Amino acid sequence: MDRIGKEYSITLLGSSHGKLVGVIVEGVPAGTELDVELINMELHRRRPGQSRITTERIESDSVIVETGIIDGKATGEPILAFVKNKDVDSSYYDSIKNTPRPGHADFTNRVKYKDHHDHRGGGRASGRMTVGLVIAGAIAKQMLRKLGIEVYSYTKSIAQLVARPINITEEFIYSDKNLVRVPDENLIEPFIDYVTKVKEEGDSCGGIVECQILGLPVGVGEPWFDSIESKLSHIIFSIPAVKGVEFGSGFAASKMKGSEHNDEFTLDEEGKIVTETNNAGGILGGLSNGMPVIFRTVFKPTSSIKKEQKTVDIKNKTDVSFKMEGRHDPCIVPRAVPVVSNAAACVILDLILSGGYYQIE
Amino acid sequence: MDRIGKEYSITLLGSSHGKLVGVIVEGVPAGTELDVELINMELHRRRPGQSRITTERIESDSVIVETGIIDGKATGEPILAFVKNKDVDSSYYDSIKNTPRPGHADFTNRVKYKDHHDHRGGGRASGRMTVGLVIAGAIAKQMLRKLGIEVYSYTKSIAQLVARPINITEEFIYSDKNLVRVPDENLIEPFIDYVTKVKEEGDSCGGIVECQILGLPVGVGEPWFDSIESKLSHIIFSIPAVKGVEFGSGFAASKMKGSEHNDEFTLDEEGKIVTETNNAGGILGGLSNGMPVIFRTVFKPTSSIKKEQKTVDIKNKTDVSFKMEGRHDPCIVPRAVPVVSNAAACVILDLILSGGYYQIE
Amino acid sequence: MDRIGKEYSITLLGSSHGKLVGVIVEGVPAGTELDVELINMELHRRRPGQSRITTERIESDSVIVETGIIDGKATGEPILAFVKNKDVDSSYYDSIKNTPRPGHADFTNRVKYKDHHDHRGGGRASGRMTVGLVIAGAIAKQMLRKLGIEVYSYTKSIAQLVARPINITEEFIYSDKNLVRVPDENLIEPFIDYVTKVKEEGDSCGGIVECQILGLPVGVGEPWFDSIESKLSHIIFSIPAVKGVEFGSGFAASKMKGSEHNDEFTLDEEGKIVTETNNAGGILGGLSNGMPVIFRTVFKPTSSIKKEQKTVDIKNKTDVSFKMEGRHDPCIVPRAVPVVSNAAACVILDLILSGGYYQIE
Amino acid sequence: MDRIGKEYSITLLGSSHGKLVGVIVEGVPAGTELDVELINMELHRRRPGQSRITTERIESDSVIVETGIIDGKATGEPILAFVKNKDVDSSYYDSIKNTPRPGHADFTNRVKYKDHHDHRGGGRASGRMTVGLVIAGAIAKQMLRKLGIEVYSYTKSIAQLVARPINITEEFIYSDKNLVRVPDENLIEPFIDYVTKVKEEGDSCGGIVECQILGLPVGVGEPWFDSIESKLSHIIFSIPAVKGVEFGSGFAASKMKGSEHNDEFTLDEEGKIVTETNNAGGILGGLSNGMPVIFRTVFKPTSSIKKEQKTVDIKNKTDVSFKMEGRHDPCIVPRAVPVVSNAAACVILDLILSGGYYQIE
Repeated sequence: MDRIGKEYSITLLGSSHGKLVGVIVEGVPAGTELDVELINMELHRRRPGQSRITTERIESDSVIVETGIIDGKATGEPILAFVKNKDVDSSYYDSIKNTPRPGHADFTNRVKYKDHHDHRGGGRASGRMTVGLVIAGAIAKQMLRKLGIEVYSYTKSIAQLVARPINITEEFIYSDKNLVRVPDENLIEPFIDYVTKVKEEGDSCGGIVECQILGLPVGVGEPWFDSIESKLSHIIFSIPAVKGVEFGSGFAASKMKGSEHNDEFTLDEEGKIVTETNNAGGILGGLSNGMPVIFRTVFKPTSSIKKEQKTVDIKNKTDVSFKMEGRHDPCIVPRAVPVVSNAAACVILDLILSGGYYQIE
Repeated sequence: MDRIGKEYSITLLGSSHGKLVGVIVEGVPAGTELDVELINMELHRRRPGQSRITTERIESDSVIVETGIIDGKATGEPILAFVKNKDVDSSYYDSIKNTPRPGHADFTNRVKYKDHHDHRGGGRASGRMTVGLVIAGAIAKQMLRKLGIEVYSYTKSIAQLVARPINITEEFIYSDKNLVRVPDENLIEPFIDYVTKVKEEGDSCGGIVECQILGLPVGVGEPWFDSIESKLSHIIFSIPAVKGVEFGSGFAASKMKGSEHNDEFTLDEEGKIVTETNNAGGILGGLSNGMPVIFRTVFKPTSSIKKEQKTVDIKNKTDVSFKMEGRHDPCIVPRAVPVVSNAAACVILDLILSGGYYQIE
Repeated sequence: MDRIGKEYSITLLGSSHGKLVGVIVEGVPAGTELDVELINMELHRRRPGQSRITTERIESDSVIVETGIIDGKATGEPILAFVKNKDVDSSYYDSIKNTPRPGHADFTNRVKYKDHHDHRGGGRASGRMTVGLVIAGAIAKQMLRKLGIEVYSYTKSIAQLVARPINITEEFIYSDKNLVRVPDENLIEPFIDYVTKVKEEGDSCGGIVECQILGLPVGVGEPWFDSIESKLSHIIFSIPAVKGVEFGSGFAASKMKGSEHNDEFTLDEEGKIVTETNNAGGILGGLSNGMPVIFRTVFKPTSSIKKEQKTVDIKNKTDVSFKMEGRHDPCIVPRAVPVVSNAAACVILDLILSGGYYQIE
Repeated sequence: MDRIGKEYSITLLGSSHGKLVGVIVEGVPAGTELDVELINMELHRRRPGQSRITTERIESDSVIVETGIIDGKATGEPILAFVKNKDVDSSYYDSIKNTPRPGHADFTNRVKYKDHHDHRGGGRASGRMTVGLVIAGAIAKQMLRKLGIEVYSYTKSIAQLVARPINITEEFIYSDKNLVRVPDENLIEPFIDYVTKVKEEGDSCGGIVECQILGLPVGVGEPWFDSIESKLSHIIFSIPAVKGVEFGSGFAASKMKGSEHNDEFTLDEEGKIVTETNNAGGILGGLSNGMPVIFRTVFKPTSSIKKEQKTVDIKNKTDVSFKMEGRHDPCIVPRAVPVVSNAAACVILDLILSGGYYQIE
């Protein structure tokens, strides 16, 4: 199913070159105040054509809300919200129908759906489908904000270049304003230079997005299958190009000792129980422990590159060489930043609504 | 909920010091042949007390199947299967009730459940609950095997020591027979030595488990929220002590270029479409591409250590120092190996049953 | 949630006086041939303004399919299909906001949603929402037809007037062509006369719809909570104005003896096992037994009547008398006939897809 | 699946002649006080062997709670509770394996499960499985009682004999103490006489159970698929032998006019909005309206009778005549009374927990 969430439930709609891409959101209580302009603001953050280092395709996505919000308030009905697709020429995709693009879902979709799916522009496997995730997240964020919960994300690394640890929240706001969404001013130019270089080579590069969730009370999440890690990783791994997710110390934990890794408890100035370090990434036993929830998501280099590649002609059963056309992001990371935080917001809200923590008004 | 899966659905039962730990398995068609001894074999692999480098606690877990299997065949009813807990002295856990152990779920559970949960031995947050996962996985593996699908796992690294790439399947079988479950004979002694050393220090260490799923046809999985990555990461992150999951190239992808990362398609000797490399980890667009599905799971160092640590006395609201007693695994990785493969088997079977790929007889 | 179904899943959208009413349908395999005109044909059957005995409001509902069907074939995406609402004057509903209409959901919705729901025209509680059920059913019927399964419904009774047992399928086709959808030509005029009379009185009347499902193989359904009766009654009781559902012998069974009620098994001419009577309504132990599945649904008299009624002014906390305006169906039964069969089709298809009975192509 | 419920979720376990029959209950918050003796009391009410008009089989079902309740309090874990089956001689069922009993699920189960299910004593289709429903309901009732909600049921009719309307709650308590569970003292002897007579004939009879839910606040339930009627009918139709369910006026509504059927609103002495009649059965638009929720359930005559019947020998493909042995209830209605109220309690609690109405402590 293209659906996720128990109490805050979202269903992705549409396809890359279909009439629209969007989402159905269920679970918003009647009377919830929702500002449609905040949805457009989040959509703006993932939009292509913003700078010389993203794809040159221009989309002026503006959300259309057909049901579920009247006069800035939720009615309790399912919310149908989407962005219309521009009429685009899909003939290129017909020309490559028999030569699956390396790194893309062309091959697997063709085998699974026997040519019955919408293959144009990647169809339902396209990154453009994240528009629906962003719309749903922009609604979730408004509900979380009323509870004092904020979800931030930013570029942690591109290739070998790694940003220093962030001091929320000024630096987040800073990161949101530069082209590469990095909270480290010394890295802005190096990031841009590197991405520009791989673009000129007709190549692409990967990177890491870090996300922090602030303001969660202790005890959100459930043991086992509704743990925060299980639910967050589930939605994050559905985003195209994600190859890994780690919480807190993450993969570095494999090289640590227990005496280093355990976050010792102490009392802060206000007598609140906190941990001195945060290797746990804000989660113990699947539940929030009151510290920031921190996770990192790795994005592979964009699969669409201009360099010559080898593939197979499925019809003629021969090896062929292959060069991709079109305008593509040499590095998806800056545009993936808002996708990660909005996807995360959906899950956190779902856990909160499921657990009966708050009455959101 | 303590439940996961749509068509192959499992619900974990019990708690560490309760009467039993086990599982309800739903979705096994009437008539499926199931060998209860194969369940015991998988349980044996996760059992403590197997060697000098695991906990010295001895459990002789033998599965009891109360419903759903008669004369070696599934009846179509939900299967209730469990292992009885020995009567254990839980008084130690009462003595530490007010001093949450660093790295454990004591603090978060206490806040969430207000002392109403079963806190003895970690209760429901205990690693002992993975007995239910292993039972369910041992049933799933029998069903997968009939379809030619095998799920293997082994120790990839402990601390800085990393095993070389595995050549399935001889090396897997080899790994399964040594104490540390590593498929690299040159690492057996170094692993054992390292773990023995940290144990003597009263400390613990972490590591990485790699898992390979062989024999999947092309097209298992769904786009978006039922992608193989989403579903596998969901169950894997529910296992205690997991801090990260990565597929194929994983976090290394952040430092690669597209031209390196894209797996080029070619035809093998039999004319089957394969990829020359497997950075995708066997998955494109959420669907299996016919190559081995490969993922790695990082386990933090065991939280239970004998070294002195700081914590907080919750009742008296003071910082206290704290030394843990009891017998614990200095490194959980070797015992986590079968937990990972069995958890993965549950998810893969669920995807296969949901997609209507096969009629399992 | 406004959603039902596991493998064939539908989510109702919109509200009576909102922009649209419609449905999201998930679970249609890519490549399924779907004729949009057959959806319009089913919508035509529930449309008002068809005759002198239905409401005089005129709606020319024509379905718009935004996603999921291209060139007469399903793409595998969720199908978004709806009918646009005409701009209507909702001021009447504002004038009665404080005086809940007897028999309607005004009072309960107001208490539950604290005035935040869309109350115009009954909002989400309106019978107009059945447009989404009919669209989803019209798709389901096309898939069922390929498996040789047909779902028929017709008016069984209005007030005291009860049609004789039907001989499928000629009589069904006949019933579908007369104004009151009755398969008994001797009852057409009496039905029309009776409804005309209550309409002239400013009153309304109820009746019973019978539904038959033909062509089901033996064994569709599951024991217990996915029994055919459980699943059918669930969706049928969601239709506004339904007060009861009975299968086979139904309420008459309370007055029968076992020796009368038990349907004895025998062999038909072709050696197929059949039952001599069908008090079971085609279902034994929750599973289809190969005989026609038969159930009856009772609809209460339309709540909207012109006669003076008593209600309460919620704001002023006083009893008031009340006369409704507007054009309403004096008897909803003929228009409910296609709603019942289309709702039933959704459930039957869901059971079939869940049970892996067929591969629908 | 053998599972129902979203927030209060129950899974039935076992089979008639297996090791046990019982249930897994999920969704009871940690700390909820639960009296196991109240479970036994409800089980006692459905127990056979209580009188000369029920089956003479004797079962002394006493519940065993293996997980989820410690010292009279829920731990938050899934609750595993069951009744052990006595060792019984199943050889009779082997002797009738090829001659499906009229009215039973033998034929449909055999076709669906191809002899792989547990056929002994009806297996999973047996009325004995309602033990699990009663256990789950007995837990739900304890939670509802804290919210001031009570679920009552009683025999409304047997054959032609119909009890007069009940004045809760004295009469309910009265009904619970007589053999036939009727709240009308003038009907006790006639009921017993009638059932005794059909028993002597080797025959059986049906009847109707009425259920009332008192104390529900206004607004419980959801529009459409989570309406009170949809959810109640779903679980009630899963009970073996049920042929129909009606709410409030029920099937009689087909013969009423709107002006008779509409329940007019008025203010009671305390200024609370009530309706003067209750044809709605306490539900408007799927939501509770504050009046008693009333529904009736019809049970067919017991299928197991001693009179000679015809059936088919499946193996030899011949018509045969057939006489059943064993001890059976000539009328299941008195024993079905507690099954109906306990099943209803599960659904009502689920709706309340899903809607976030109350924090149950």
